[in-house]
Amino acid sequence: MTQTTQPGDFTSELQSAVYAKLHLAKAAATQLGLLSTEVKNTALLKIADALWESRDEILAANQEDVQAARADGQPETRIDRLLLTEQRIRGMMDGLAQVAALPDPIGTVLDSIHRPNGLRIEKVRVPMGVIAMVYESRPNVTVDAASLAFKTGNAAVLRGGREALQSNAALVGAIRTGLAAAGVTPDAVQFIDRVERESVDILIRAKGMVDLAIPRGGAGLISLVTQRALVPVIETGVGNCHVYVDAEANLDKAEAIAVNAKVQRPSVCNAAETLLVHQQVALDFLPRVARAMAAQGVQLRGCERTLAALKGQSGIGDVIPASQEDWETEYNALILAVRVVDSLEEAMTHIGQFGTQHSEAIVTEDVRAARKFLEGVDAAAVYHNASTRFTDGFEFGFGAEIGISTQKLHARGPMGLNELTSYKYMVYGNGQVRG
Amino acid sequence: MTQTTQPGDFTSELQSAVYAKLHLAKAAATQLGLLSTEVKNTALLKIADALWESRDEILAANQEDVQAARADGQPETRIDRLLLTEQRIRGMMDGLAQVAALPDPIGTVLDSIHRPNGLRIEKVRVPMGVIAMVYESRPNVTVDAASLAFKTGNAAVLRGGREALQSNAALVGAIRTGLAAAGVTPDAVQFIDRVERESVDILIRAKGMVDLAIPRGGAGLISLVTQRALVPVIETGVGNCHVYVDAEANLDKAEAIAVNAKVQRPSVCNAAETLLVHQQVALDFLPRVARAMAAQGVQLRGCERTLAALKGQSGIGDVIPASQEDWETEYNALILAVRVVDSLEEAMTHIGQFGTQHSEAIVTEDVRAARKFLEGVDAAAVYHNASTRFTDGFEFGFGAEIGISTQKLHARGPMGLNELTSYKYMVYGNGQVRG
Repeated sequence: MTQTTQPGDFTSELQSAVYAKLHLAKAAATQLGLLSTEVKNTALLKIADALWESRDEILAANQEDVQAARADGQPETRIDRLLLTEQRIRGMMDGLAQVAALPDPIGTVLDSIHRPNGLRIEKVRVPMGVIAMVYESRPNVTVDAASLAFKTGNAAVLRGGREALQSNAALVGAIRTGLAAAGVTPDAVQFIDRVERESVDILIRAKGMVDLAIPRGGAGLISLVTQRALVPVIETGVGNCHVYVDAEANLDKAEAIAVNAKVQRPSVCNAAETLLVHQQVALDFLPRVARAMAAQGVQLRGCERTLAALKGQSGIGDVIPASQEDWETEYNALILAVRVVDSLEEAMTHIGQFGTQHSEAIVTEDVRAARKFLEGVDAAAVYHNASTRFTDGFEFGFGAEIGISTQKLHARGPMGLNELTSYKYMVYGNGQVRG
Repeated sequence: MTQTTQPGDFTSELQSAVYAKLHLAKAAATQLGLLSTEVKNTALLKIADALWESRDEILAANQEDVQAARADGQPETRIDRLLLTEQRIRGMMDGLAQVAALPDPIGTVLDSIHRPNGLRIEKVRVPMGVIAMVYESRPNVTVDAASLAFKTGNAAVLRGGREALQSNAALVGAIRTGLAAAGVTPDAVQFIDRVERESVDILIRAKGMVDLAIPRGGAGLISLVTQRALVPVIETGVGNCHVYVDAEANLDKAEAIAVNAKVQRPSVCNAAETLLVHQQVALDFLPRVARAMAAQGVQLRGCERTLAALKGQSGIGDVIPASQEDWETEYNALILAVRVVDSLEEAMTHIGQFGTQHSEAIVTEDVRAARKFLEGVDAAAVYHNASTRFTDGFEFGFGAEIGISTQKLHARGPMGLNELTSYKYMVYGNGQVRG
């Protein structure tokens, strides 16, 4: 309310603003866990209606963001991520209908224990409570995150990117209208409209007010959140994934899988960054895969043996020598590092050293080699004769995805509705005391 | 190796020492996940043998710690926590045999998904990897933590309290002897023998080398670890638990449960700290429970209505007026705060405000009130007509306990073997690529 703000005041004023929303979220969370599935599903469909009814305001707000980004000289790829259209709003509405159609995990009895002293213990799935989402430019994350958190009885606190501020504010307005139309407290979804960097910090350090923080975005954001957070965090997103072509590989499958893993959508975390090839098949396989990659515009960076195998081959473009840095890099681009290995074991050692425990594939017809790879490689998803690109909540059949966890605590790999829940033990007695 | 140490060198020398052990643990972890249940169980029994064979060295080392603690003027309760005897070593050996007898969770298929494109996805339980335990004076935690981590295929890195250094070193020596006797790498269990405070810090900030850190001890340790950690943490231990005696309570059950929850072991986290009593039964119940508590040496701190209800009663000792601080305090002692509430809702609001989401009990014969309490109270364990003291891995039938989680991420309440595991997705294809 004051017109002049001192540096110290500023932080505490910002903290008060963020805490005020967290308090509302926490109060809402106590009710959300008790909502019936029917009410929640109705609300999700009302949100879809509200998005459509507010489409003019949403698109106008989005145009402000887009024009600001253009004026700021942002590249077109980034502007495309930011852009909303009627069609994209339709996409969000379809997403809401899909989430409404999914089974409600809340209240599921996960385990039932009868003790000799007569106690009956039920392990029941419950919401996390308050989930903070910290994300970057895509406004569709606003609707995705709010709907998945709401379906699982959680309050959502959304802190999107600065560049999408007007779009997100308009989307959250529609979401809250939809909630209210279903008789649900709009406080279930809180929007942090303060885009100062410190607002992220305040959110992820609000111990006791946030039960889970999920960062979604680039490596910088993920690293900031895990470095600074005091609340529980699920890390998402970093993927240095490998395709290993074994001595016993079917080379047709190997080529199709390697090309798909690299080029089908190179900017995402489950795309492959390094191809490992057993030396027994290197001379047969490398020229053909190099040609297939070149045809898709992929630049190769090879180890010495790769360079030797490809020397003098036509139609493969220039192959650059790979450095140590290449094995460590998640290119997220049409670049592929290639290394010839002496054995399955050497491939597994390479993956253990440079992989990020995301998605790893072996191509082989040797079932024992596949088994060794799948059991021995430490990653969220390990593939036998399939592309790493399948690590995805929809491809796994979850019907939803809030992100892909790269940690082992709580959730690993694609996170759907179940991964946004916790559990409690409900214990039924008739006067039992401990002896 | 240098004789003189500069301040900066010191930290990096300490870091090198800790990292060296983490590297050994990480290398061991890649093998441990693949061990058969039989080999693991044999090793657990060999550890028990080794403890018995080394009992003289262990007890001698323990005497050094005990004498140092006595010389340091430590209270007898603390010395008792530290003390080892032949009988306590037998207790550890029994614990090892129990862990060996438990089912092995590793390799369990948690879910099996068949996708329309022919992919078969199996969600399989796997170890966490490297688990760091940071704990205080009880040396038995060394054997407990090592055995539970090992049974679940994890490498354990143990950082016990300074005062138990010699005892822990001797115990770890025996553990490693037992592992080696079973043909298992002794690197599975690493002991951080550097008791500088900074060694905890290095451990909990070793991102990429530690998959999970579990602090066990007082509030100061827990707070330090959650404040400073960069690796995933499970918080344990803080419990401000309540017993609520409803208008429809059976007062015999209520008295037995309240007394048991307070006095059966007041120093632990699942003991009750506050008694909430519905005003309809306050005049009947408060005098009798006050006498029963006084007979057990419990000091009461009451709200105004409690003081009024107890005024002039004999055999209840002095009842001190309760302050706001009393509602917030985990006494861990024979002190009980008492408050009269107007309704079930007021009791639930009090618990929501002051509870630590650990263990909460309602005593009532009204099934609807019980249901409302169990569903509405946000805690790891919620009890109907039973003592809060049952929140315990053994009492829940897990056969083991590594601690009691007070967070909602990954594990909540008593943690047994399953809670020390993660999962991976094993995906079987025949050449599938993503379209």
